[in-house]
Amino acid sequence: MKVNVLFFEGFETLDAFGPVEVLGKVSEYELQYFSVEGGIVTSAQGTQIVTKSMDEIESGQILVVPGGRGTRTYVNDTVFLEKLKTTAVNAKYCLTICTGSALLAKTGLLNQKKATSNKYAMDWVMSVNSEVHWQKSARWIADGQYYTSSGVSAGIDMALGFIADQFGRAKADEIAHGIEYLWNSEAENDPFTR
Amino acid sequence: MKVNVLFFEGFETLDAFGPVEVLGKVSEYELQYFSVEGGIVTSAQGTQIVTKSMDEIESGQILVVPGGRGTRTYVNDTVFLEKLKTTAVNAKYCLTICTGSALLAKTGLLNQKKATSNKYAMDWVMSVNSEVHWQKSARWIADGQYYTSSGVSAGIDMALGFIADQFGRAKADEIAHGIEYLWNSEAENDPFTR
Repeated sequence: MKVNVLFFEGFETLDAFGPVEVLGKVSEYELQYFSVEGGIVTSAQGTQIVTKSMDEIESGQILVVPGGRGTRTYVNDTVFLEKLKTTAVNAKYCLTICTGSALLAKTGLLNQKKATSNKYAMDWVMSVNSEVHWQKSARWIADGQYYTSSGVSAGIDMALGFIADQFGRAKADEIAHGIEYLWNSEAENDPFTR
Repeated sequence: MKVNVLFFEGFETLDAFGPVEVLGKVSEYELQYFSVEGGIVTSAQGTQIVTKSMDEIESGQILVVPGGRGTRTYVNDTVFLEKLKTTAVNAKYCLTICTGSALLAKTGLLNQKKATSNKYAMDWVMSVNSEVHWQKSARWIADGQYYTSSGVSAGIDMALGFIADQFGRAKADEIAHGIEYLWNSEAENDPFTR
């Protein structure tokens, strides 16, 4: 199974690389890095990442979509959103972190589904698409093939929760220990609810 | 103040990008990314990062050194170690994460200082240099200009501890909240001591 991480200009660094760390510990997964056109993409923290074009993403795999200040631009980018919609609907699972859920919401794929996002950006995220059943209190939420998480660090907890769903709790605990991470393992327990 | 992150082939992704996320929230800091020769460097998780040559690093700044499986090679790379020694001794502060402390230890700069590392690699790290006062139980340790942390996620806690030392506890708490991170703020409290 491939884990395809989708980058865009101004993505939040830890949104992506927390889940990358967790998912990278699963021997069954192969990590790949993409952006809308491929080439070098720069995070909100100035990190430059080499990517391939998202047109190369195979269907039936796992898609990871970070958030970050770049989402404020890409939520209005119809070319990006059309490609995201096609890629996400064809993925076996799609995991978004922080305001990455705003991008997925804008495609319509979260309509009538439960989802969450960064607790400091919730008003904006909710304004993007009111047909999503936005949850103001949740560390992360799984609804069908879509997993959405709260802000930044919550992506690590969600990725571990995803591993627990796929491979069992023991595997998630093993990965958390291996990276010396104190996993906040209750999806409903959101310490940053406002 | 510049925060200069030093990459090498096979660095552990989250070792670097946890602290990058935290330090990137400080408006007084400017993040830059380096490697021994510059160019593209690949993490243990296959992420390709664009870097500048570490010869360009200015003195008097903050140096961040991740760990990862690549350290097993670089701990025997005399060219790398010589450059690391010069860069670290001229830095105002040097922060290492996980087995990054093995690299710094090999330069001799941690001799007679307290330091820690990944709790699953402690035997190997201690074998690299027995003149370091290795601490088997510590989430992170500050000794003079050198900060060393436990494995992977502990780098996030250390970076917040560094911010607390530099700007006060309130600033560290503010950053932790902003990234929705439950900070393990006690340096002495090491849940992964073996």
